[in-house]
Amino acid sequence: MLRTATHDGSVVTLVFADGTRARFHAIWLRDNALDPETRAPGNGQRLITIGDIPADLSLAAAEVANGDLQVTFQPEGKTVAFPAAWLRAHVYDRDHTHRPGWTEAGITTWESGLAAPCADWADVHANPRAKRGWLAAVAEFGFAKLTGGPTEPGSLLKVADLFGYVRETNYGPYFEVRTEVNPTNLAYTGLGLQAHTDNPYRDPVPTLQILYCLENSAEGGDSIVVDGFRAAERLRDDNPEGFALLAGYPARFEYKGSDGVCLRSRRPMIELSPDGQLVAIRFNNRSSAPFVDIPFDRMEAYYAAYRQLGEYIDDPAMGVAFKLEPGESFIVDNTRVLHARKGYSGAGSRWLQGCYADKDGLLSTLAAMEMAQPEAAE
Amino acid sequence: MLRTATHDGSVVTLVFADGTRARFHAIWLRDNALDPETRAPGNGQRLITIGDIPADLSLAAAEVANGDLQVTFQPEGKTVAFPAAWLRAHVYDRDHTHRPGWTEAGITTWESGLAAPCADWADVHANPRAKRGWLAAVAEFGFAKLTGGPTEPGSLLKVADLFGYVRETNYGPYFEVRTEVNPTNLAYTGLGLQAHTDNPYRDPVPTLQILYCLENSAEGGDSIVVDGFRAAERLRDDNPEGFALLAGYPARFEYKGSDGVCLRSRRPMIELSPDGQLVAIRFNNRSSAPFVDIPFDRMEAYYAAYRQLGEYIDDPAMGVAFKLEPGESFIVDNTRVLHARKGYSGAGSRWLQGCYADKDGLLSTLAAMEMAQPEAAE
Repeated sequence: MLRTATHDGSVVTLVFADGTRARFHAIWLRDNALDPETRAPGNGQRLITIGDIPADLSLAAAEVANGDLQVTFQPEGKTVAFPAAWLRAHVYDRDHTHRPGWTEAGITTWESGLAAPCADWADVHANPRAKRGWLAAVAEFGFAKLTGGPTEPGSLLKVADLFGYVRETNYGPYFEVRTEVNPTNLAYTGLGLQAHTDNPYRDPVPTLQILYCLENSAEGGDSIVVDGFRAAERLRDDNPEGFALLAGYPARFEYKGSDGVCLRSRRPMIELSPDGQLVAIRFNNRSSAPFVDIPFDRMEAYYAAYRQLGEYIDDPAMGVAFKLEPGESFIVDNTRVLHARKGYSGAGSRWLQGCYADKDGLLSTLAAMEMAQPEAAE
Repeated sequence: MLRTATHDGSVVTLVFADGTRARFHAIWLRDNALDPETRAPGNGQRLITIGDIPADLSLAAAEVANGDLQVTFQPEGKTVAFPAAWLRAHVYDRDHTHRPGWTEAGITTWESGLAAPCADWADVHANPRAKRGWLAAVAEFGFAKLTGGPTEPGSLLKVADLFGYVRETNYGPYFEVRTEVNPTNLAYTGLGLQAHTDNPYRDPVPTLQILYCLENSAEGGDSIVVDGFRAAERLRDDNPEGFALLAGYPARFEYKGSDGVCLRSRRPMIELSPDGQLVAIRFNNRSSAPFVDIPFDRMEAYYAAYRQLGEYIDDPAMGVAFKLEPGESFIVDNTRVLHARKGYSGAGSRWLQGCYADKDGLLSTLAAMEMAQPEAAE
């Protein structure tokens, strides 16, 4: 509910029922008008372009009507209404200062004490509430396990089907993670792998990865996940200059382990939005290419920050470890959560299958479920 | 060839045969050592982590041997060689200042005078040189046409097969672009569409789009492409403060035109790398959501810059127009080149199919062809 609306030609000042004050510009209101000539009623898409709005736009009137805002724009002579609740949800007249490396509401960073979020295969297929909780865990923590699944090869594709679409790459729609004789990638050996994000040499990077266990009787081969956002926060808190260096210069990544493939990227290890939000972590010792975009006089400090970030990532206090059983899998947000593998050897076998997918589908499926059943959000 | 190498504990200073001088740090050289204990010989991946490098690393020796560099690291007592040509290709002791909005070598921005790059269907399938030229055009100009293709539905998937992989989305592996009765997207109408990038509400955005014509006998329906990087350059040159605003604050995009779909993103209209390189343009009047991340006192200037960018994009001096015939298609780099459609109506029909794919596959295929046949690069 609105209490008052006052205006001049270019700005309307609102006071909400609880006393909150917020200003909105005429141009912003006109661009975001909700009437059927501005937004297509069926699909909600905007029907006008920025150039369709008169350059000499002004507010001729603004008043509270039934608790909502009603404004008239000139020279169009167009009157439109804005619900008070909609305005309240879109206030931009507020403090926008952020600490570099901030994360959005709904993201919870974690260290080794976290109990791995986990859902059951049959449950997420049968019960929308279970599926929603599982997707919400990936959104909040950047990873989640799934247990009790089948042990047929290709089952990981059914995991992706639950929320979105596989991203096929040169590794195929999915790939076999087991020891090979002439490995095109060190993942296809029994070596331990430092915690890493996958395919940082790819742009766009795959934003989700699914790793699905079919056999795991070998000694070792445990999985470890590490919250890269938490590692970045630690670096920011302990060494803000180092954080700024890793965010402020592009690294380079490269993979050309197979014939006909030459993937290269130029992206920072810590990617921030223009206003300092953590967007993505890229960290992979195997595929880091020579860094050539950092000035000579910053290179030693850059490497010191890289070493420090690596120490947080290797710190046992950061990782959540588990050993997948056949039929178990996990999803990681590959823009945030790193995954590692302990080396394995000896008798027995280890066979995982992996595939990539994208966050847009997962977050869209989750958001649509939340819109359809908001009461289940608590 | 190297002329001289001098060193202290942490830096080696090289003079190349042509007199060029460049310094390299011990830590950088050790991390990028090319020996088989540091890089796996088969697949080229790094076998060590940053933490495996001793924190007290120093250079015990550095000398020129057969024109290349040979260095010894302490405390490892490890001696490795670096080819002079490899060092020359990876010099970072150079000027790193860039003008905001710079583009990498190999990118050519354009306006309406450009003759649309074009290749023939049979040719790109039969002739690697033709295929390479076609892919190189997408890399350099951000779009290319393909003519003389079949008119069977689904043929666009064969275009993607030439270089990479389709990115499936909620619109399917591919989608029909023709007039529908209850369109879930304004693309599925006869309306003209302002030049735009597709799916800015998706994160990651699809980085390539293929639009393939099956029927086009209706009046109108011409395609227009606009170089978003060129539009951004014009804004930077004419209004640097406006350019900084569009690059400096996230916009918002949203699509929820279908059941079960709710896609949202928070990304700037002009995305720059941390060192100011143009990375991506996002511009779409239909799916722009209310911008709520710009401070109140910058919003009017932000909107003025948005209007100005839109004027460049709508400027007939910027667009390259063509009308696709059945069997013709074009690819756009959806992070750079906007595409528009003139409205169509009346007798006849217009039926296009569209799909998304990603640049990593295209650029990898191109780079691998260039590595395999460098002599054809001119």
